[in-house]
Amino acid sequence: MTLTDIQQRDAQDPLRPLRDLFDLPPGMIYLDGNSLGALPRAVPARMAEVLAREWGRDLIQSWNSAGWFDLPARVGDKIAPLIGARAGEVVATDTTSINLYKALSAALNLAAQDAPSRRTIVSERSNFPTDLYIAEALCRERGGTLKLVESHQIAASLGDDVAVLMLTHVNYRTGAMHDMAAVTRAAHAAGARVVWDLAHSAGAVPVDLHGADADFAVGCGYKYLNGGPGAPAFVWVHPRHVDRCWQPLAGWWGHAAPFAFTPDYQPAAGITRYQCGTQPIVSLSALDCALDVFAEAEKLGGMTALRAKSLALTDLFIESVEQLCPGAFTLVTPLEHAQRGSQVCLTPTEQLPAGSAYAIVQALIARGVVGDFRAGDAEQPDILRFGFTPLYLSYENVRLSAQTLREVLLNKEYELPEFNRKRAVT
Amino acid sequence: MTLTDIQQRDAQDPLRPLRDLFDLPPGMIYLDGNSLGALPRAVPARMAEVLAREWGRDLIQSWNSAGWFDLPARVGDKIAPLIGARAGEVVATDTTSINLYKALSAALNLAAQDAPSRRTIVSERSNFPTDLYIAEALCRERGGTLKLVESHQIAASLGDDVAVLMLTHVNYRTGAMHDMAAVTRAAHAAGARVVWDLAHSAGAVPVDLHGADADFAVGCGYKYLNGGPGAPAFVWVHPRHVDRCWQPLAGWWGHAAPFAFTPDYQPAAGITRYQCGTQPIVSLSALDCALDVFAEAEKLGGMTALRAKSLALTDLFIESVEQLCPGAFTLVTPLEHAQRGSQVCLTPTEQLPAGSAYAIVQALIARGVVGDFRAGDAEQPDILRFGFTPLYLSYENVRLSAQTLREVLLNKEYELPEFNRKRAVT
Repeated sequence: MTLTDIQQRDAQDPLRPLRDLFDLPPGMIYLDGNSLGALPRAVPARMAEVLAREWGRDLIQSWNSAGWFDLPARVGDKIAPLIGARAGEVVATDTTSINLYKALSAALNLAAQDAPSRRTIVSERSNFPTDLYIAEALCRERGGTLKLVESHQIAASLGDDVAVLMLTHVNYRTGAMHDMAAVTRAAHAAGARVVWDLAHSAGAVPVDLHGADADFAVGCGYKYLNGGPGAPAFVWVHPRHVDRCWQPLAGWWGHAAPFAFTPDYQPAAGITRYQCGTQPIVSLSALDCALDVFAEAEKLGGMTALRAKSLALTDLFIESVEQLCPGAFTLVTPLEHAQRGSQVCLTPTEQLPAGSAYAIVQALIARGVVGDFRAGDAEQPDILRFGFTPLYLSYENVRLSAQTLREVLLNKEYELPEFNRKRAVT
Repeated sequence: MTLTDIQQRDAQDPLRPLRDLFDLPPGMIYLDGNSLGALPRAVPARMAEVLAREWGRDLIQSWNSAGWFDLPARVGDKIAPLIGARAGEVVATDTTSINLYKALSAALNLAAQDAPSRRTIVSERSNFPTDLYIAEALCRERGGTLKLVESHQIAASLGDDVAVLMLTHVNYRTGAMHDMAAVTRAAHAAGARVVWDLAHSAGAVPVDLHGADADFAVGCGYKYLNGGPGAPAFVWVHPRHVDRCWQPLAGWWGHAAPFAFTPDYQPAAGITRYQCGTQPIVSLSALDCALDVFAEAEKLGGMTALRAKSLALTDLFIESVEQLCPGAFTLVTPLEHAQRGSQVCLTPTEQLPAGSAYAIVQALIARGVVGDFRAGDAEQPDILRFGFTPLYLSYENVRLSAQTLREVLLNKEYELPEFNRKRAVT
């Protein structure tokens, strides 16, 4: 494809108007929306209103008048259609780690009721570490076992000791995507329940929790949902499970009558019982406002159109890197569309010095192309990660990113000392 | 005291300049800072900067450049001097309910190590319900017992089955304050550890956790600390305990090396291990900014001066109500200074119709005096609650509030239908 072809694709892109809903730094190509989504243009004015009117002027009245108390449910209702859940089934609250603790704990409690000999949680060794830490801590508390396996071993690992299969739908490091329906079917056939982490899926790829007959799901508000740094996360539980047990973080926001101030806990019906304490309304309001972008996207084809563009963007990036940087990288992300999330990960070949991914990423950032570095596993220890958010990226952005990568390699910028100084946090 | 006397007291109030650090609605006397603190004037500009520069322009770089990752510790260091903790001992994170779960769980784990037969948690029946719910849920998970007693039964309840005494320092409903040092001493003598909830203490009354030799403490960011609706809470653990066990919400922000992305959890040293997932940075930044008010207060005498003014304000309110509304109310809050927090609670006598507290509060709000109603217990079911924040209230505000209460009673405004329509949430 020539530059003219690419510009024509942008001109014909039905999702192009969505770009104007974001405030991106001029000159930057932002390929890290899978880590922190960009700032939706409407958020600052909404935040100013939350501060001046809701907090400053109306004060405690805003629990009613501004609907603060119901905000987790209202935000959940905006997330629900993006993940194949129904209205009233999702709450936006707390963090992904904490929601995972609630969901895993409930899944273990269900197993204790139905099949007490099942006390193992299976997950992938390459899952996002906080998910594994939470599972490890729960097993430590309850006396269960966390079994970590490779991706291809999942089906074989589902023995009659397994209570829960806990997976992240799209892997944070490789961008590989599980077939949610098939994996869930296999787990159910083996007598296990599945907890899905949608951190790298919600808002990026179509998810159909009911269609896949999933059991539990959690996800993140600040990646593809663009809710701002550390925005509250979300949790969903299938209606067949939701009223069957308590989750242990049984705070007053999950009580059937929180303002009756009774000393005994009575869980609310439905997903409300997955709430715990008072939520950070300012951050939650930013997420609420950010999700309106998806209402606009819905008018232009919704998640189906976003998915088509996401695949076209990642296809174009893969082709462009192959063409412009031949032999320099091995593709870590699956080439098959059905197995690919909305990111592309590369690892340097022997053409490049060992361990150069970090410096290449820094050199790209210095040129305005923002991706990130992730330490991989023993097999692929050195990963360049690029997230492609179809809401605000153009085909020209993608082509220019690959061209910039070529320039970084041609100039051997990864050898420069300033790009090799590691920071504490990436 | 005449109005002139009162105005003179305001003129001589050394803390008076602090009032200008808040943006309060004109004409309102806000006596609900114990529920939601007022908006500090500096917050909106700081928030605009967080949104435009930190999130919008610098994006993921802000984890380093804006210090987002360390924000829980930095905010914790601002809270520490208000509660008698040392730098590095407090993190601002999650919610009070969730931090209580962490602290209680750790306290039970310590007991399991030291004295496995101690599996009871003792608390007050009149404690804030979410604290009781969290304890109840933990007991359900672990097989322990939650024993609820009246305030005067606490000492007698500390048998050799008791692992943890969990108390709120200042009662949310009555404003009664425990003697933290004496209660802690009694609990230790009985072989139990104490978890203190400082929701109605931090920023309102002097707290000395080290002086009292306390074990664990949690508290709220959005009441007297003025961090905004649902601002993150905080947690403190005595250094003698902090490295002795895990808390179960073992997410990546509590890991010794969160960016090493190792599959096994290794808790960080110190209070950092009480962190779990990514924090709501926008809400946490509001709390960070709000706490600068206490740096200004420190220059004018700090918590000692704030406490002196708080007692003077609540004394004046109690005297004024007795003088202006003779015989109409019984004081629920202790008259003794050492037993009083920073709020005054009243319950109507037989002079007024039964159950009139709610309508009186509504009538006061309609006249610009904002307190709140709380359903009490069987003995005192009907409570008017007034919080006195010495940071932004004047003596004249207090006098005027009592005068307004007198007018509401003289006009029998509590009989008006519009003040008797209960809302879902107060």
